[in-house]
Amino acid sequence: MAKHGQELVRLARKENVKFQFEASVAGGIPIIKALQESLGANQITKIIGIINGTSNYILTKMVQEGISLEEALKEAQLKGYAEADPTNDLDGFDVAYKLFILSSLAFGSDLDLNKINIEGIRNIEPVDLEYGSQLGYTLKLLAIGKETEQGIDVRVQPTFIPEKHPLASVSDVFNAVYLEGDSVGELMFYGRGAGGLPTASAVCSDIIDLALANKIRGYASPAKIKEQLEITATINRYYIRISVQDIPGVLGKITTAFGQNKVSIHSVIQKGEGEEPVLLVFVTHEVRESNLRLAIDDIKALDCVFQVDNIIRIEEDV
Amino acid sequence: MAKHGQELVRLARKENVKFQFEASVAGGIPIIKALQESLGANQITKIIGIINGTSNYILTKMVQEGISLEEALKEAQLKGYAEADPTNDLDGFDVAYKLFILSSLAFGSDLDLNKINIEGIRNIEPVDLEYGSQLGYTLKLLAIGKETEQGIDVRVQPTFIPEKHPLASVSDVFNAVYLEGDSVGELMFYGRGAGGLPTASAVCSDIIDLALANKIRGYASPAKIKEQLEITATINRYYIRISVQDIPGVLGKITTAFGQNKVSIHSVIQKGEGEEPVLLVFVTHEVRESNLRLAIDDIKALDCVFQVDNIIRIEEDV
Repeated sequence: MAKHGQELVRLARKENVKFQFEASVAGGIPIIKALQESLGANQITKIIGIINGTSNYILTKMVQEGISLEEALKEAQLKGYAEADPTNDLDGFDVAYKLFILSSLAFGSDLDLNKINIEGIRNIEPVDLEYGSQLGYTLKLLAIGKETEQGIDVRVQPTFIPEKHPLASVSDVFNAVYLEGDSVGELMFYGRGAGGLPTASAVCSDIIDLALANKIRGYASPAKIKEQLEITATINRYYIRISVQDIPGVLGKITTAFGQNKVSIHSVIQKGEGEEPVLLVFVTHEVRESNLRLAIDDIKALDCVFQVDNIIRIEEDV
Repeated sequence: MAKHGQELVRLARKENVKFQFEASVAGGIPIIKALQESLGANQITKIIGIINGTSNYILTKMVQEGISLEEALKEAQLKGYAEADPTNDLDGFDVAYKLFILSSLAFGSDLDLNKINIEGIRNIEPVDLEYGSQLGYTLKLLAIGKETEQGIDVRVQPTFIPEKHPLASVSDVFNAVYLEGDSVGELMFYGRGAGGLPTASAVCSDIIDLALANKIRGYASPAKIKEQLEITATINRYYIRISVQDIPGVLGKITTAFGQNKVSIHSVIQKGEGEEPVLLVFVTHEVRESNLRLAIDDIKALDCVFQVDNIIRIEEDV
């Protein structure tokens, strides 16, 4: 559907037949019908999904058992949740395909699958989940589609969200799609995103619809299309973990590097003083991704910095 | 809809016109269409809703601020969430009406609104929420419809649910409907259950549907109807708070009263030793409500018991 859906939709329109694909995203969750029918009176401004059960299962196990991604992946493979080659799940490609379908329905059909910024969960370590928890966050691999003033922001990324957010309680292999419409406000749909029976439930609902009517409903929402945003043009808050030498003045050099690149710091956690490396965890205010990247380049070049261990975006207001 | 819906449905069928009522339950959440269309391949076995925003707001404030129901109600009235006469919201009547509509769609149209067992939240005290939290539970006013072997169990009650359950994170005025279908498994729909715009979103989706087609879809699911259960015939776990004298042997007398009525105890918390009254909190295993009532009668008759302060059902496996 993600790769050839637009062609299939054109063909269906030309032949004046109905075309349905409820099972293509989030298995048994009736999100496609909701976007195409129930929310017809809404302009969708935001759609955020946990739509890959395998990666969500792995992140859940890492939090619950404090184990590494590799160990959690092995558990997932033993349970049949992950394939021998986990690339599609871990690197965010599966999420991107489904996000493209959701975003096309929410924002219009002119989006470009190849322009979606995709980041997976391979470099998430248990220590990041622990720090996140101390800060009041839960980490999820999110599919994000947002209408901003600049354009349509479509991306896949591991993301810290407040632990009280409805998406934070979506555990194990469960999927959820959260969205905001200008009339309906916040909505969330939660359920099983894969498996024979949940998928069959979605396929059967399509068949029942097709048997009952032959009306054509639109694939794309009629809302005007904005430009799809480059990731560097987006505004985010960031969690940044850095390994540094245990010498005086390190914190000053790093905060200076942030400051010179217009990256404003919200909070700092320092761990392991007297050990080497010392871990510094920064949480930023909202900054432009391009500025953050310049700051990170400057920080990496500092002698007192061993490495920038991890950078994870925070969505305070998902 | 709850009081006259069955008559309206009959009329619509006779006149061969479509009849829709998406806004009647849970405002902007498209739960009616989901039950009528998306889940057509499913037999629904369970439907559980947080479908009264006012009472959910009050319970949320009581937990967050440790205040009494009366104080939380005043806040809700100041914010315009509660009416001057809060009976419909606090005593569960509003929930019962909506539950009747949901249950009729899920289980069939022969249910009886007057047979729904209704309990509201008026006698919930902050101390119950604290004990619940210690036990790992969150309290919600739930609309519950379940297919059991004995019949259809339809009721409204304040309920402790595990704090990790998706329904536990539904806060403030938000609504949610959680259900289980034999194919789709668990599903949850979350959003705004009231307000002009969310309700308009639901009404408009009906209008769009009606403009696009004139097909009649059924009001009731075709599943065979079981008997609607009396509350005394249901099996539950219970939280029971009792104020007792601070004298030896009290615990023994109460547990004997439970045992003689086949009520098996899972755990006990004792608070305030050396003070009077001492608080005893019992959590039971699964017992029949009729047995529990007999045990409570016996316990109330004990000299060492001041009063049974509160009894709240626990849904471990919502």
